Amino acid sequence: MPARSEQEWIEQIRRRFPARRREIVFGIGDDSALFEPSSNSQVLTSTDLLIEKIDFLVERHGPAWLGEKALEANLSDIAACGGEPLACTLALAFTGATEPAWIERLLEGFSAAIDRSRCDLIGGDLSASPGPLIISVTVFGLVARGEAVQRDGARPGDRIVVTGTLGKSATGLKLLERFPAEEPLDTDAGVEGWSRNFPLADSNAAARAVRWHLAPQAACAAGRAAARLGATSMIDLSDGLSTDLEHLAQASGVGMLVDQAALPADACVDLLTAGDRVLVALDGGEEFELIFTIPPGADLPQSAGGRPLRVIGQVESQPGLRLRHEDGSVEPWVAGGYRHW
Amino acid sequence: MPARSEQEWIEQIRRRFPARRREIVFGIGDDSALFEPSSNSQVLTSTDLLIEKIDFLVERHGPAWLGEKALEANLSDIAACGGEPLACTLALAFTGATEPAWIERLLEGFSAAIDRSRCDLIGGDLSASPGPLIISVTVFGLVARGEAVQRDGARPGDRIVVTGTLGKSATGLKLLERFPAEEPLDTDAGVEGWSRNFPLADSNAAARAVRWHLAPQAACAAGRAAARLGATSMIDLSDGLSTDLEHLAQASGVGMLVDQAALPADACVDLLTAGDRVLVALDGGEEFELIFTIPPGADLPQSAGGRPLRVIGQVESQPGLRLRHEDGSVEPWVAGGYRHW
Repeated sequence: MPARSEQEWIEQIRRRFPARRREIVFGIGDDSALFEPSSNSQVLTSTDLLIEKIDFLVERHGPAWLGEKALEANLSDIAACGGEPLACTLALAFTGATEPAWIERLLEGFSAAIDRSRCDLIGGDLSASPGPLIISVTVFGLVARGEAVQRDGARPGDRIVVTGTLGKSATGLKLLERFPAEEPLDTDAGVEGWSRNFPLADSNAAARAVRWHLAPQAACAAGRAAARLGATSMIDLSDGLSTDLEHLAQASGVGMLVDQAALPADACVDLLTAGDRVLVALDGGEEFELIFTIPPGADLPQSAGGRPLRVIGQVESQPGLRLRHEDGSVEPWVAGGYRHW
Repeated sequence: MPARSEQEWIEQIRRRFPARRREIVFGIGDDSALFEPSSNSQVLTSTDLLIEKIDFLVERHGPAWLGEKALEANLSDIAACGGEPLACTLALAFTGATEPAWIERLLEGFSAAIDRSRCDLIGGDLSASPGPLIISVTVFGLVARGEAVQRDGARPGDRIVVTGTLGKSATGLKLLERFPAEEPLDTDAGVEGWSRNFPLADSNAAARAVRWHLAPQAACAAGRAAARLGATSMIDLSDGLSTDLEHLAQASGVGMLVDQAALPADACVDLLTAGDRVLVALDGGEEFELIFTIPPGADLPQSAGGRPLRVIGQVESQPGLRLRHEDGSVEPWVAGGYRHW
């Protein structure tokens, strides 16, 4: 990572990311950053490590979309508690092979996600890595006192609701594995070009799936809406539907019955083989939609924050996950999503 | 990193680190953590990446002291703004070779630093790494509204003050490089055993230097005291005295004259050769003492937060750093501390 000194990079980043929110007292440039939430607000925080070869491949993931995803994946955790994005820190470790132009593009993508979410970059760290590239993001969100949603409030009788559609990210990944792109992708034009190079039944759907895999968007507005509607528990869909439902069920001490016919599989899932379609809708990871539970009497609109809301099942007192297949039979459902080891 | 599933590790960490501060609404176990500062407080935050082979060597640094240092190095940034530790997150990426017992010891050390600083662990991330071990810590601190100290307030005439003594960490590093330990060190008994194996003029001083290098302690109480005394600017001593003074001087738009004879070199520095002694006191990194500036009229006690305070020079209007040598001559002082590239 030559071409500029550490201090010059910090200066450049400071100029590119001025703090704009009134809650930020000071951002980049001191030993710590300082902010002050308004008097009836509480502070949400979440952190994630993204490691090359484990969480992303530089030969597949263009730097601008990688930068967007690094922020959005973290904001999804703020969304899952019903919060509004406030600020973030970004720590980066580059290898000797990292080109300055690649770093610039990463920062462009990060900046795009910053602008979209109105979330100020207020600090970070720049380091060297002997091995993989490392991106560590910590996010801060605000939520009105008493309005944060946890995982442990689901009660028998509650409906289970999912935002958006399922399977986009996992479909995008499977398509890229089957039809590798010649260059790392991080523009719409690049993805559209890629989709036309291969015999895909629906190139628009394929491009959309790949874009969502490489540059998903957190459901922040939908999460805030769910909190206001009275969601009793909420989680973001990052490890796969069954694994994330199991987290909710276990934290709440309840069971869940999910109706397979109700799952809102995205149209792009049809690009896969029949076996993959089921896997992807049931267990696709990194979807960054939200799952929440809501009492039977509560009002539930058709959509929230621009995402459709779909009831996919209900909370039961008997522990465990159960899946009602399309033929009406009900079977225990063993969580099968992603784990690091 | 076998022996336990990711979920089992998270459960174990959650049990080991219960949130105890009243500001913490909920900690580990949800998508985000939630806290609420008291109504006249502001929130400080800082983040650091520690990467094996760049920031630490597992063959030298025992896991318990590595865990302590990971937190203390971050808390030093809270100290440098005059804040009180509140909470932290810990993200870890282990390689296939990381033993569960090593992880347990790392958590023990982290826990010791948590207890010492009254700083709750409220979240984090567990991941795998194909290459180096990675430790990413984000810390949160509290400071009364308007009391945070930045880098940019030094004014001509202010005294420059340093806490504690200089050169401990760099001396410890030089001793370990010259006299490698057979096993990674992270106990007092281990360091004392190491110090007796070698022809060291003062084995107690050597052990103290090595301990400070591997397990330093942030000057949080001294930082809060400096803020209350009216410090106009402050920074922690992490990159080396000249580099960190230069950060203060540039941020404040001033110059600084430092009196070499006033520098409080630690007694352990005498274990080094004459040339190394000067280098270590002037530019030793990772000291985790504080440098602050304070107006000429302000009260300055002999010590604060258990650390001696020493005036080492004064702020001047002419930009740049200058060093007054022991013979009275004054020369420009070129910053020479640590940079990642």
